[in-house]
Amino acid sequence: MLQKTSFLFALYFVVSATVCRSENGYELWLRYHLIAEEKWRDTYRQQIKAIWMEGQSPTLLAAATEIQKGLNGLLGISVPRASQALPQKGLIVCGKISSPAVQNYLPNADRLRTGAEGYVIQTVRQGKNTVIVIAAQQDVGVLYGVFHLLRLIQTRQSLHNLSIAESPKIQLRMLNHWDNLDRTVERGYAGFSLWNWHKLPNYIDQRYIDYARANASIGINATVLTNVNANAHILTDDYLRKVEALANAFRPYGIKVFLTARFSAPIELDKLPTADPLDPQVQQWWNRKVKEIYQRIPDFGGFLVKANSEGQPGPQNYGRSHKEGANMLANALQPFGGTVIWRAFVYDNNVPEDRAKQAYSEFKPLDGTFHNNVFVQVKNGPIDFQPREPFHPLFGAMPQTPLMMEFQITQEYLGYSTHLVYLSTLFKEVLDADTQTTGKNATVARVVDGTLNNHSRTGMAGVANIGNDINWCGHPFAQANWYAFGRLAWNHALTSEEIAEEWIRMTFSNQPDVIEPVKKMMMASHEITVNYMTPLGLHHIMGWSHHHGPAPWIKDKHRADWTSVYYHKADSAGIGFDRTLTGSKAVAQYAPPVAETFSSLEKCPEALLLWFHHVSWKHRMKSGRTLWAELCHRYYQGVDSVQWLQQTWQQVKGKVDEERFAQVSMLLKQQYEEATIWRDACVLYFQTFSKQPIPAELPIPAHPLGHYMNLTYPYAPGIKWDW
Amino acid sequence: MLQKTSFLFALYFVVSATVCRSENGYELWLRYHLIAEEKWRDTYRQQIKAIWMEGQSPTLLAAATEIQKGLNGLLGISVPRASQALPQKGLIVCGKISSPAVQNYLPNADRLRTGAEGYVIQTVRQGKNTVIVIAAQQDVGVLYGVFHLLRLIQTRQSLHNLSIAESPKIQLRMLNHWDNLDRTVERGYAGFSLWNWHKLPNYIDQRYIDYARANASIGINATVLTNVNANAHILTDDYLRKVEALANAFRPYGIKVFLTARFSAPIELDKLPTADPLDPQVQQWWNRKVKEIYQRIPDFGGFLVKANSEGQPGPQNYGRSHKEGANMLANALQPFGGTVIWRAFVYDNNVPEDRAKQAYSEFKPLDGTFHNNVFVQVKNGPIDFQPREPFHPLFGAMPQTPLMMEFQITQEYLGYSTHLVYLSTLFKEVLDADTQTTGKNATVARVVDGTLNNHSRTGMAGVANIGNDINWCGHPFAQANWYAFGRLAWNHALTSEEIAEEWIRMTFSNQPDVIEPVKKMMMASHEITVNYMTPLGLHHIMGWSHHHGPAPWIKDKHRADWTSVYYHKADSAGIGFDRTLTGSKAVAQYAPPVAETFSSLEKCPEALLLWFHHVSWKHRMKSGRTLWAELCHRYYQGVDSVQWLQQTWQQVKGKVDEERFAQVSMLLKQQYEEATIWRDACVLYFQTFSKQPIPAELPIPAHPLGHYMNLTYPYAPGIKWDW
Repeated sequence: MLQKTSFLFALYFVVSATVCRSENGYELWLRYHLIAEEKWRDTYRQQIKAIWMEGQSPTLLAAATEIQKGLNGLLGISVPRASQALPQKGLIVCGKISSPAVQNYLPNADRLRTGAEGYVIQTVRQGKNTVIVIAAQQDVGVLYGVFHLLRLIQTRQSLHNLSIAESPKIQLRMLNHWDNLDRTVERGYAGFSLWNWHKLPNYIDQRYIDYARANASIGINATVLTNVNANAHILTDDYLRKVEALANAFRPYGIKVFLTARFSAPIELDKLPTADPLDPQVQQWWNRKVKEIYQRIPDFGGFLVKANSEGQPGPQNYGRSHKEGANMLANALQPFGGTVIWRAFVYDNNVPEDRAKQAYSEFKPLDGTFHNNVFVQVKNGPIDFQPREPFHPLFGAMPQTPLMMEFQITQEYLGYSTHLVYLSTLFKEVLDADTQTTGKNATVARVVDGTLNNHSRTGMAGVANIGNDINWCGHPFAQANWYAFGRLAWNHALTSEEIAEEWIRMTFSNQPDVIEPVKKMMMASHEITVNYMTPLGLHHIMGWSHHHGPAPWIKDKHRADWTSVYYHKADSAGIGFDRTLTGSKAVAQYAPPVAETFSSLEKCPEALLLWFHHVSWKHRMKSGRTLWAELCHRYYQGVDSVQWLQQTWQQVKGKVDEERFAQVSMLLKQQYEEATIWRDACVLYFQTFSKQPIPAELPIPAHPLGHYMNLTYPYAPGIKWDW
Repeated sequence: MLQKTSFLFALYFVVSATVCRSENGYELWLRYHLIAEEKWRDTYRQQIKAIWMEGQSPTLLAAATEIQKGLNGLLGISVPRASQALPQKGLIVCGKISSPAVQNYLPNADRLRTGAEGYVIQTVRQGKNTVIVIAAQQDVGVLYGVFHLLRLIQTRQSLHNLSIAESPKIQLRMLNHWDNLDRTVERGYAGFSLWNWHKLPNYIDQRYIDYARANASIGINATVLTNVNANAHILTDDYLRKVEALANAFRPYGIKVFLTARFSAPIELDKLPTADPLDPQVQQWWNRKVKEIYQRIPDFGGFLVKANSEGQPGPQNYGRSHKEGANMLANALQPFGGTVIWRAFVYDNNVPEDRAKQAYSEFKPLDGTFHNNVFVQVKNGPIDFQPREPFHPLFGAMPQTPLMMEFQITQEYLGYSTHLVYLSTLFKEVLDADTQTTGKNATVARVVDGTLNNHSRTGMAGVANIGNDINWCGHPFAQANWYAFGRLAWNHALTSEEIAEEWIRMTFSNQPDVIEPVKKMMMASHEITVNYMTPLGLHHIMGWSHHHGPAPWIKDKHRADWTSVYYHKADSAGIGFDRTLTGSKAVAQYAPPVAETFSSLEKCPEALLLWFHHVSWKHRMKSGRTLWAELCHRYYQGVDSVQWLQQTWQQVKGKVDEERFAQVSMLLKQQYEEATIWRDACVLYFQTFSKQPIPAELPIPAHPLGHYMNLTYPYAPGIKWDW
């Protein structure tokens, strides 16, 4: 009978795979399509016959639903729930380590070091029966283990003699949504906010569940629902009811909800005369508000705060410091176990010095003064998510303060959701950078994971690229950046190749003739984009406000550090921002060996050359070319490489589904057009300073500079146009 | 071999239907799921064996793709394309009447009166073979015929001896999208605009195709892409390239693209000193612009214009009339066959008289003065898409001008996409209303379909309720309103019951125990909503600006006719707007017999009583109750009926898919809560005038009036919150 069912299911999926499986991208990497390779299908079917889930908590029910859905889909058979946990061939036993069933198979499991959220996946033989045990200290670990087992099958790994022990390297693995209450998303390029506030709390969109599933599958355990440019309305009771409904939907998947706290909320919501953090009335207001939140959401995570930055209110409005602001909120949250995440992304409205230096200048002196439930959240680089930046000098510079990493998953400066840019290589470049603050191997990763300075509280945030587009992220490949962020937050030792391959296998195909070309595309993609946008350490030369397209000509705005000329400083002699000791001295914020490298025209990596140096147009580069010629070559190489992406993608035609194949093809065409505009605009603009011809071997841009300067992008997404 | 394939497919669909068919509503009424009833499946399989599509045009290719997709899905067998058009058992022959294949089967087809867009579906016997012929004058008629055949199967109609001839009663069957270029949708409650302007023209979202399919399936043949509160940017070349891409995507499905024309565009785009329609420069500007559009879009439909209304610019800014404005644009469009649709929704900023009278006062004198490529588009009622209005007095009053009907499909005043309100009964109530302008049976439908005044150019527009929500319309039942609009625009003689049943069968189930209760819900739903919102002819008492929830207390705003008290005029004596000859005299805009009915306190339908009369609280109603008691009873009955909707929906549990069952259940809960707020707020508010108790048999509201007056809905969808 089982055989027959199995046949029917197999048949169903084989037919479905070829006939009508719609691939609109909604399923993300959790596709669970029937395994096409007979060998694998048969092997897994031999190894998996039934499921035992010990326990009934919402999280374990979610785990049970997921493993059944996944196995039924992948194996094409209906894998039953076992009626008892006793040994039988092909049983998968899932449960907490403390549960009788798990104890029966893994009597020594207590000694396994899974940590709070980790898990083991262990093959156990009892007599002639081979059982796979997924066990964890907590329910959520079981859920994570289930997703891990499914991933093994999705990526065609052997289930033979499994002995896996996983635990996350970082405690708080968090998405930051910059979602406004009107459902616009600041820097969002995948439609609009998932959170349908108007229909909450009664209407629980299936997307909320699928969002939670996707996050849990990669270990993301926290989400900030609202924009850091915060709106106090989210703290009203009406909205907290809605937040509560979302928290209830996410809780089974191990995801805690955080909110952004607008520092002036006591004034705006309850007409207090001040929001001074040292004012007792203000403190009481926040204490009450926090209590109110925890009454609705007992596991509420806490507040993310952007204060005194880009017009946001903050403690400095009252002559108080970031420390005083953060600690006031920390006091309110402390009784409930909540956390304050205070952003270090601040720079003065009056632009007193190199913007790249300001976060360090402001926060380093505060090291050691924050309460122990405060994180300082630091962007990966000192400016603002540019295509390439050096690591932020605060990493390693505040040993007494747990620093959270803030990556940007949404491609604000990297072609929106139109450009294929795999961000894992960018993330890894930062994580692997050696701050050398405590000698060698003081990597950014070790700052963030707490091992460098012995912090037990650790965190990594990614600014989400998720919207209400059917495929969640706008670009099929943008899904890989959500995926990679989660995987690296769990384990930053994974390589970008490993993550790419996992994702390709789960998302597109397990066939080598798909995996190999697509992996090459992904691995090359970030550098390609840097080349056609901001090669050699250039930065912040994008369009005004919407940040779309090139605009190195921006100058004379109300603040200098929102212009482009402030950053590239091109003149007749050369180009680049001198941040050495002859310039802004920003290099001095790094540990001496790093500072020395960056300061040296010779030792500074060419990828960051113009970040740290004002360099003569005639400077001889490693290629043997002058700086000017090299700059041109990089721009042209970037665009040519987009053509290479297009050609490479053609290789998978017919090997992936038609719909997504067409989507990526159309987007690559757009990327090529936009890359060409970047190249031509930048080369022609910088030429007005270098006064040199474009190298003869390179074609001349199609239009004069004025054409590019006149391009406008009204209604580019990601900002409110009525601002 | 065919048998075997058939078995496999059947199996696939049976399994799929029970195992994993996701029902997120994306498929709309074009679900094409395997026929569950064996009898029907077998019968149809006997009758359909192969398809012959004569011709290769994009429209015929779309028709071929659709019929194959539909039949494969419904029948669960792969219905092949025939290799030749010769008779064979179960052949479906599709093509133009003029094609050899069709001529072979229907030699007299030329004489069939299908009209330009109509079609025939005819069973033809040749020898022992029975063939079904779908034939039309034009390709699009073949496509419509294909959708009709699929609908017959989707709704389990017999295919025996088919002899169908269909042609639309109305020529221009049009959606009006109030979509802004930043993708917000004015009065949109289903997410944001489908049109992803940023990724156009290169990226053709699959939704554009599926949108066109859905429209074609119900005969909608025109779409206005942009908001009537218009943005001139859509007329720039950058945007016209994007519009062109959409027009190309829609063209195979017989859908023409229209745009809204901002009257001041010549000033805004090209710095002309004026937009005076009599200025030769302005005329030349529009002539050039129109030529530019037609170079990109040879079948461009024309312009929809909202002028001199609610702040929009128009000819009156220059002392010119609507006629002069419309005719200027008509002149520009005329050489290319384009059309101007000029909205009659105008009312003076200075509120000189009853707003209900103003469109008539302004437009009736212009009858006969518009060029012959101008439509005047008139909303169904004289105010603004209220839950119930009398028909607009312009219908029948401008015999020399083709009047387009403007219905609102999006539920601006009818509970957004949260309330289950089937609008077909509202549409029909208006269409069936007898204007009596030329004696009896001068129905609004006959004004609109041109038969009353012998107009060959006819049109019906519906303000779309479509957004980028996965299920398109936000509420599963809101899809029925898109569907019903299209069906009525094609054939207004269809009954609301017929349309509801078709839709339920295609969308949910062909089982009577689903059809019957759901049809009852739909048929009752509009009256239910009128009862808990605006019974007995009340109108315009909703929330300020966002129009969500009750606010009969609104007064003292900068213009009287944007308040609620202006419309309900409640005082200690009674309630209602006297529009009889003792009042605003609006009744005089109707034909004498209609005016007489509306003017008479006795004859006026109670459903419109307070629209036309200021009535004493003590007035004795047909029920025997006083007006006050009747008003209370209507409000309470409305809310009680929502509970009935909830209970009735429970009857289909397990008979429809889980996901949509849950969605509707959650939304009905929200509807109940909001209906209760409407009831309590209105009853308590009007009680302050009637000074009478709520009838003893009715429960007392849960809160005092102040509670309801303090409710706010920040960030309610459908308006830009930064305005």
